[in-house]
Amino acid sequence: VSVIQVMLGDRSYPIAIRSGSLADVGEAIAKELGARRAFVVTTPRVAEAHATAVAAGMARVHLAEERLLVPEGERAKTLRTASRLYDELLDRGAERGSVLVGLGGGAVGDVVGFVASTFLRGIPLVQVPTTLLAQVDASVGGKTAVNHPRGKNLIGTFYQPRLVCIDPDVLATLPARMRRSGIAEIIKVAAIWDAVFFAWLESNLEAVMRLVREPLEEAITRAVAIKAEVVGLDEREAGLRALLNFGHTLGHAIENVGSYRGATHGEAVAMGMVFAAALSESRGLCPAGTRARLVALLARAGLPSAAPDWHAQRDAYLRAISVDKKIRDEKLGFVVLRELGRAEVIGLAPAEILPEGTA
Amino acid sequence: VSVIQVMLGDRSYPIAIRSGSLADVGEAIAKELGARRAFVVTTPRVAEAHATAVAAGMARVHLAEERLLVPEGERAKTLRTASRLYDELLDRGAERGSVLVGLGGGAVGDVVGFVASTFLRGIPLVQVPTTLLAQVDASVGGKTAVNHPRGKNLIGTFYQPRLVCIDPDVLATLPARMRRSGIAEIIKVAAIWDAVFFAWLESNLEAVMRLVREPLEEAITRAVAIKAEVVGLDEREAGLRALLNFGHTLGHAIENVGSYRGATHGEAVAMGMVFAAALSESRGLCPAGTRARLVALLARAGLPSAAPDWHAQRDAYLRAISVDKKIRDEKLGFVVLRELGRAEVIGLAPAEILPEGTA
Repeated sequence: VSVIQVMLGDRSYPIAIRSGSLADVGEAIAKELGARRAFVVTTPRVAEAHATAVAAGMARVHLAEERLLVPEGERAKTLRTASRLYDELLDRGAERGSVLVGLGGGAVGDVVGFVASTFLRGIPLVQVPTTLLAQVDASVGGKTAVNHPRGKNLIGTFYQPRLVCIDPDVLATLPARMRRSGIAEIIKVAAIWDAVFFAWLESNLEAVMRLVREPLEEAITRAVAIKAEVVGLDEREAGLRALLNFGHTLGHAIENVGSYRGATHGEAVAMGMVFAAALSESRGLCPAGTRARLVALLARAGLPSAAPDWHAQRDAYLRAISVDKKIRDEKLGFVVLRELGRAEVIGLAPAEILPEGTA
Repeated sequence: VSVIQVMLGDRSYPIAIRSGSLADVGEAIAKELGARRAFVVTTPRVAEAHATAVAAGMARVHLAEERLLVPEGERAKTLRTASRLYDELLDRGAERGSVLVGLGGGAVGDVVGFVASTFLRGIPLVQVPTTLLAQVDASVGGKTAVNHPRGKNLIGTFYQPRLVCIDPDVLATLPARMRRSGIAEIIKVAAIWDAVFFAWLESNLEAVMRLVREPLEEAITRAVAIKAEVVGLDEREAGLRALLNFGHTLGHAIENVGSYRGATHGEAVAMGMVFAAALSESRGLCPAGTRARLVALLARAGLPSAAPDWHAQRDAYLRAISVDKKIRDEKLGFVVLRELGRAEVIGLAPAEILPEGTA
């Protein structure tokens, strides 16, 4: 068992990482939060795989598992879904002391977090992430969101859960490609923050990917600990937290431009990290060979190991990475590697990131 | 000029109280918040009275006043209005650094605050309250809200503004009855927290009500300072902040039961305060004569000076004040006076507050 404490003053909370812990969520809610009612928000598919274990654990402490269903994936992240959850919570008599439990992937966590943060001006929230990506990424940081027709995550709040329960056993039912999205984020935090962890991944990647219990728990724990440390130092993304965007400038552009349609978030970020490492190396910001080590690890993880081919669509990519769409030469914060395990943000104009005529 | 600092760690903010300050809102936004764009959310009626002054002040610092209109009163406080504001903000290219300005009464402040707290995970918020009630009450505490068909303020957040600008001059256009709602809250904070201020009100009430500049500014400043002190000690209503509910247990019940249909919030709270003072006195918790002094001041303010006649509708009132509608004998925190200027919360079951057969 590992417990990582996210240090955010009076909004601090623990992240407990333990195989089989799904069955203990109920006990934690009853004992640690002193709650009498818990509403589990999940999808039909996740409910089928995991709700029985959660419900049994709740029954043990005489908590009724009251279940609210939302659709799979991004389709759950709408104001309409949030509004329906408000209705159901009120219909069932939810109160300020009732707990909302998000059981599912990142999308479920986002919308449950949004509802928890806005229902009765905030009710206690427990996150039980069931994808590797949600376990190592969304579980830390307190970002909640729903989408708007104009873009993803445009409506949302910063709202910290009271507790996060991570059970690595749930990953067994996750498709390999979705697991790789989580691996991409694990490689990312190692690359920006922890050279020892990066070297550990070089030795243990295959065991982690085969879900061998001990190395898997170790990888999740280290990744969560790094993100918790960064977020604890910078809750609202004023500075240091920007390092977590390593690979995401181009990664988001890939997702927006759509030239790699069907790429997962992890695949897009992997390409973005290769791009950022190459840029760092070509500018002499990190030792030669840095990019090659990163590429080798990504390739072993079954992730893309090449930068995106943006040249043919340079204008679309420039637009996608520009902070202010009208001011093309305004610099943006771009995360570069100084070495494996250390990153920094430098100011670059979009045209410096994607220079003309370098195809 | 008075500036009250609301002390909430990294969410601290100033409340500036000055006659004529409406014209300086733009300067504060440009200089203190460093913002390039400000969206003023207001109602058609408030816009007609005050938007010109705000716009002129913004023009002076080269800020375009971009105006978004919402309906008057509680009708503005819906998820639908919030959703429409998101759409308009996105259509106009609002960004994380754009400022939302709430220009209006409490309802405008509630919905603008909700939108500011949830748009792009929170953008800077400036409140410019234009009713006495909003100036002395809603301006401090960071409560935001929209209503739900099942009840008022069921959806909302805690979100602190970056700045509050109070211009007492705007009250000249406010109907006398609406001003009295603010007076009720001023009397309330004096009664629970500050015996000297209560005595000052006994000497100066008529001047305040005639909007004589100096005593009016003084009354607003003292009321805001008290609320800021209480909120600073207890941001999320865990303890001390409950004292601000003095008169509100019965006040809210009066509004819910509807037996005084047409009563303003201030009138309902006045009746609730008389009730609570009578209960305090009859239980020997405060000196004899406490209720009479409170009643005398409320009467001079043109506010109700009698407790509500709840006996004929006891069941409805009991339901309205019960925290858990199903558990009738569960105690709730009820605010009693220990003397004028000092209050405390005691635990009372609804049936102890409204005992049988005492008509």
